[in-house]
Formats: sequence, C-alpha cells, structure tokens
Amino acid sequence: MRKVAVVGIGCTKLGEHWEKSLRDLSTESGALALKDAQVEGKEIEALFIGNMSAGRFVGQEHLAALAAEQAGLNPIPATRCEAACASGALAFARACSSIQAGEHDIVVAAGAEKMTDLKGTDAISTLMGAGDQEWESSMGLTFAGLYALMARAYMKKYGLTREELALVPVKNHHHGMNNPYAQFHMEIDVEKVKRSSMIADPLRLLDCSPITDGAATIILASEEAAKRFKNPVWVRGIGQASDTLALHNRADITYIAAAEHAAKKALQQAGIGIGKINVAEVHDCFSIAEILAYEAIGLAERGKSKDLLNNKETTIGGRIPVNTDGGLKMGHPVGASGIKQIVEIVKQIRGEAGNQVKGCDYGLAHSVGGSGATCVVSVFGKEEPE
Amino acid sequence: MRKVAVVGIGCTKLGEHWEKSLRDLSTESGALALKDAQVEGKEIEALFIGNMSAGRFVGQEHLAALAAEQAGLNPIPATRCEAACASGALAFARACSSIQAGEHDIVVAAGAEKMTDLKGTDAISTLMGAGDQEWESSMGLTFAGLYALMARAYMKKYGLTREELALVPVKNHHHGMNNPYAQFHMEIDVEKVKRSSMIADPLRLLDCSPITDGAATIILASEEAAKRFKNPVWVRGIGQASDTLALHNRADITYIAAAEHAAKKALQQAGIGIGKINVAEVHDCFSIAEILAYEAIGLAERGKSKDLLNNKETTIGGRIPVNTDGGLKMGHPVGASGIKQIVEIVKQIRGEAGNQVKGCDYGLAHSVGGSGATCVVSVFGKEEPE
Repeated sequence: MRKVAVVGIGCTKLGEHWEKSLRDLSTESGALALKDAQVEGKEIEALFIGNMSAGRFVGQEHLAALAAEQAGLNPIPATRCEAACASGALAFARACSSIQAGEHDIVVAAGAEKMTDLKGTDAISTLMGAGDQEWESSMGLTFAGLYALMARAYMKKYGLTREELALVPVKNHHHGMNNPYAQFHMEIDVEKVKRSSMIADPLRLLDCSPITDGAATIILASEEAAKRFKNPVWVRGIGQASDTLALHNRADITYIAAAEHAAKKALQQAGIGIGKINVAEVHDCFSIAEILAYEAIGLAERGKSKDLLNNKETTIGGRIPVNTDGGLKMGHPVGASGIKQIVEIVKQIRGEAGNQVKGCDYGLAHSVGGSGATCVVSVFGKEEPE
Repeated sequence: MRKVAVVGIGCTKLGEHWEKSLRDLSTESGALALKDAQVEGKEIEALFIGNMSAGRFVGQEHLAALAAEQAGLNPIPATRCEAACASGALAFARACSSIQAGEHDIVVAAGAEKMTDLKGTDAISTLMGAGDQEWESSMGLTFAGLYALMARAYMKKYGLTREELALVPVKNHHHGMNNPYAQFHMEIDVEKVKRSSMIADPLRLLDCSPITDGAATIILASEEAAKRFKNPVWVRGIGQASDTLALHNRADITYIAAAEHAAKKALQQAGIGIGKINVAEVHDCFSIAEILAYEAIGLAERGKSKDLLNNKETTIGGRIPVNTDGGLKMGHPVGASGIKQIVEIVKQIRGEAGNQVKGCDYGLAHSVGGSGATCVVSVFGKEEPE
C-alpha cells in the first residue's frame, strides 16, 4: 500500500453561522486548507466530503459535486460519504484508499454540516436519522435518550457518579478556552453541569454537544507527492467497523464494540500500542461517549475511565490529553466532526495546537456514527512509516 | 493496480413494494447476489451502498451500517456513498478502489432506494435535492423541468423531432418485455407517447422514468480471490467526473460534459475505443437523457443520435443495443440504478440476459447524478485484463 500524508488543514469557526450557507462553509474551510498546504486548486485530483443530512437540514443532497463546483474544481470526481456523525471520518478513509489504490496523488477530504438553518424539519428528529428509524426514531427516542440509556447502564454497572460524569465537559470546556474555533469560551465546573437543564436523565444540557454549523478540510498526498510539502503528518493506520443500528440489538450497551474493533485494527496497522499515543481526539457527543471512548481505544479498562478523569490524566498536562481542542463539546457539525478531529491531531503533531502536548509523535482520532453502529479510528504519526 | 472482477449479482423486482421496507429490499438483493456468487456472508470483508435520499424518503440515514446489520455482516466496515442518481455507481467505484488499494479481497457494492413509502415529504421535492437547492429547487424547478429545458434546447439546436424523442421510450418498453424485474411490461408506440399526459413540455409521462422501490447488489473480488469463481466479469475501466450542480452555470445544456470526461477516462483505462463495446446501459431518466448519453460516450456525434434511433441501431438486434433491460424507464430506484445497470451488463457478458446480445465481450454502464453534475462510466469485459 502507498503511504499517505496530511499536508494541509482548514477549519471554519464552529457555531451558528446565520450569514453563511452550507456551500460558503465548505468553500471557506477548503480555501484555508489549500492556503495551509500552499497548493492550488488545479492540483487537487479528487474530492471526498462527509455530510450526514444536508438533504433534511437544508434540502440539498449531491453535496460533493456542489463543493467541487463552489471551489472551482470541476470536473474532478467528487464523492459524498455518509455514516451519520462518522461521515467525515469515512470521507477521510475513502480519500486515503483512493491514494493507496493509485487513483490519485493529491486529494481533498472534507466535512460540512449546516444545522441551524432548517427547512421544514427540526434538528432532533433529523439527527435521529442516525438511529434505527423503524425501531428507535418512530418510537420517539432521541439521541440524548439513547446515550442516557447507555449512561444509566454504565453508572449502575461500574459505579460512575454524576460528579465523575461531569468531569468530561468540565475538562473539555477548559480545553476549549484555547481553541479559536470553539463554539463556546466559558469555563464550567461540576456544580454548573449538575445545575444545567435536564435533557434525558442523567444527561443535562452541559453533558451534550451543541447544534453547530461548520466545515473542515484536510489535504492528503501520496508519499511521492508529499515530498514537496514542508509539514507532512503521516497516516499510520485506519480501522473502521460496524454494529447494529438499534441499541436493543446489542448484547451490552456499556461499551461500543465497533470502536474496539476499529481501534484494534488502526493500532495494528500503525504497528504500535495505545501507550505510544500522545494525544487523542475522541467522539464526545455526550459526556458518557468520551468515557466509552477511553475504554474502546484502550486507555482504560472497562469501568475504569473514572480514574483517568479523577486523576486529570486526560487533561492538558496529564499523561494522555484527550480532546485538547475541547472536542465535540466545543462544536459538533455532525458530518464535519470527523475531519475537525484530524485537524487538531495534525496541529498537535506539527506543534501548532492551542493546548500543545509536548513531544507529540503520535495522535489518534476516534469517530462514532449514531450510538456506535459505525466507528472509525485513525492513527497519525510525525515520522514517515517504513 | 490490482484487477477487480464482478463475481455475483442480485436485483429485486423493481416497482411499488408496499409490503417491503428499505432494509428488506437491500437484504433481498444481497441474498440473491451471495447465492449467485456462491459465497457466504462471513467471506464479505466490506460493504458499500449507494442511496440518494433515505433520510428524506423514510427518515433513515446511516444506511450502510443498517444494511450490514440486516445481512448479519457486522462488524465489517460499511460505507454509504451519495451523488444523487449516480449513488450506486459511486458505491461501485469506491468498492473497486478498496480492492485496488489492497484493503479487501471480497466486497459488496449495493444500491437501494425506497421511494413510495414517504414520510412527510413528496418524491418530487425530495428528488430536487439532486439539483441546486439555493438556485433551482427553491425557485420551484423540478427534475422533469430541468430535463425539459435540456430537451427543448437540444431539439431547437439539432432539429430533433417530438417523434424521434419518443423512439427512446418505445425501444426501452420493448426491451423491458423480456426483463423479469421490470416495473412495466407493456409495449408502447410513438403515438402513445405523444398522447400521454404532459409533465414538462416537451416531456410527457411516457418520457419519464417511474418512482421505484428496489435494490441491487454485486459482489466484487480481487484478481486472486476471483480465481475460485466460475463466471468472473472483469472491471476494465472506471471514469468519474463532476460539473456544476445548476444548469444555468453550464456553457451549453445540449450535452453533458461530465459524462464525456467520465467516458473518455473509462475507455482509456480499458484501453479500447467505443467501437469495441457490444452493449451499453445508459442513464435514461428522461427520453432526452438517453440521447445525450449516446453522444457523451461517443456512440454518435453531437446532434446525430436521431440516426441511431431512426435506424434502430440501439435496439436489440441492432449494431449497439442500449438499455437491453429497458433501462431506467423500467424502474429507477435512484440510489440503486447505478448497480442495477451493472447487473444487466454482467448478465450480457455472461450470456444470461433476457435480450441477449450475441458475442458480448465488452459492456459499458453510464450513470448520471442530477442533471449531470456527477457522472460515472464503467467498462466491463469478458477477458481478464493483461
């Protein structure tokens, strides 16, 4: 397989962009990535874009061709990938595959979602398109409800307290203070989480990622093409796995099996253990999700994530900082989040992050679609693989 | 690049399946393909599925994981690809790429769409998600309207008559008589087309492909894995290209530039000229689309397609039969159509088609998304490439 490097990154501000459309956002992040890589549009050979639900959010399918047109990239091939909130990570995986297959040398992998400007729908029911329509959405379940079920089961099984659960958003809000793209810049504490509005017991408002407009783009190059770029960050491994869409079809809802499969494969491909990873971006759509992520990627044994949180091991300055940009808590434009995570990992490995981890050689991104029916884990490294 | 072969095919009956859901249809076509290939589910390493708009049609995104679950394929990676009516063709292209990259040896490429069982939407506005939402859909344009504009411009420029335009559906209904999956089994004539209801002048009801539920699946194998299969049909070339989403942004609406780019690339990769192709499936969502397809893939010079139709050269028994299964006129489950076309080409090359072309060594499939913003052209051959 040919090696692949990330040679450019771009991300819009995350938030409510009432003055910008979906096409504006995707073009903005694309232009930032081209500038960062110092490549011209005419050198881009293909475009892959992750988007979950523009069809429902803004009435627009066929988004890849639109993004290519808007960026002046026609007639290059343009492909949209979708697996709910893991859509961006899928676009990244397919972009890498196209380089490994020898189809292309320089490609764009992007993600975009416009979630605030709704036409005849609401965000909650649109997001439930990620769950099982026949058995979950139609019964009135919401995503906060699904993750609340997982949180309750986990708390009962492993004795995680309400206070320990709150340590996740407290950390991520703290990290977000140094992220210029973050949707919020506000420190919170455990008491504030506990006093925020109840959404789906035990999850409260501050346990939930926000509704976000945003886009992120990375530029990928083959090993031959990467030689001319000054700051290549190498793709060392990618794992992707699937599981049942509906939560009730899983044997145990206190862990995410697909994430464990994906992490195992990605680390195996990278040829390293989790102990070598210096920084990770994980899918914290709800507080409980970050806890499940620790255990899926192997940072903690099942039920032991609370130790990492209580000891601040995943806070900047700790042993293995997680979500150094604040994670999805600081903005979750669903189809873009998988790419946004990679932007932060690349910044860390380059040494350009807002909350810089010292001596960052390896980073990991962990993206989840729905309640865990799709997971993608990717490993990045400073050194070119052998 | 590793070689890829199609080793199994399956297609549901196309039509109104009031008693079957989207998941039922995808599983049915998958089971047929597994049986045809004589492989077991546990040998499938990845799944790619094309679907245009299940989010709006039935409230379900995240379809690839659902299809994998329903077929008992978890935890394999499952990816949905979307580019409107070319979604199936995109899933096929990404599935091939994953084999060429060395990721996998045996993968499924499928397409599925459930268009009749609508929840809070209508098919016409949902299908306009393939066009430009800001500049076409929001102004009230429909897809019949867009293709009507193209038809009018073409008729004026090249002197195509209403009667000549009708020869496309007359031929395709004739071909459909021998297609067991066809949504309709009824011969029509030019007069019947001319007397059918006006949809968007000059296009009448019988110029339009129907609203269809259906799914199609093919199984792909690497050259090493293909050795054990008895009837491999080889992928010889794939071309994909993009163009502007909105019709008003194109220099000329009497041809589809992306289809020309895609066809050129696919034939170049196959190392053959269009003259070698014995059968083609082209995207005839409206009568005019088949005419534009002839010219895009090089069967006729611009403006000369009427000669092919008047001389019955594209009818079974003619020089280069096109849409021998009746094309999309016999059923257009939008996200599945790109795979359904490949099913027919594979049957032709195997010698198993309803309207069999004699001595069929090479076949071509041509798939269009929207009014031509995405096009994928693929070439298949009986002989393994060198």
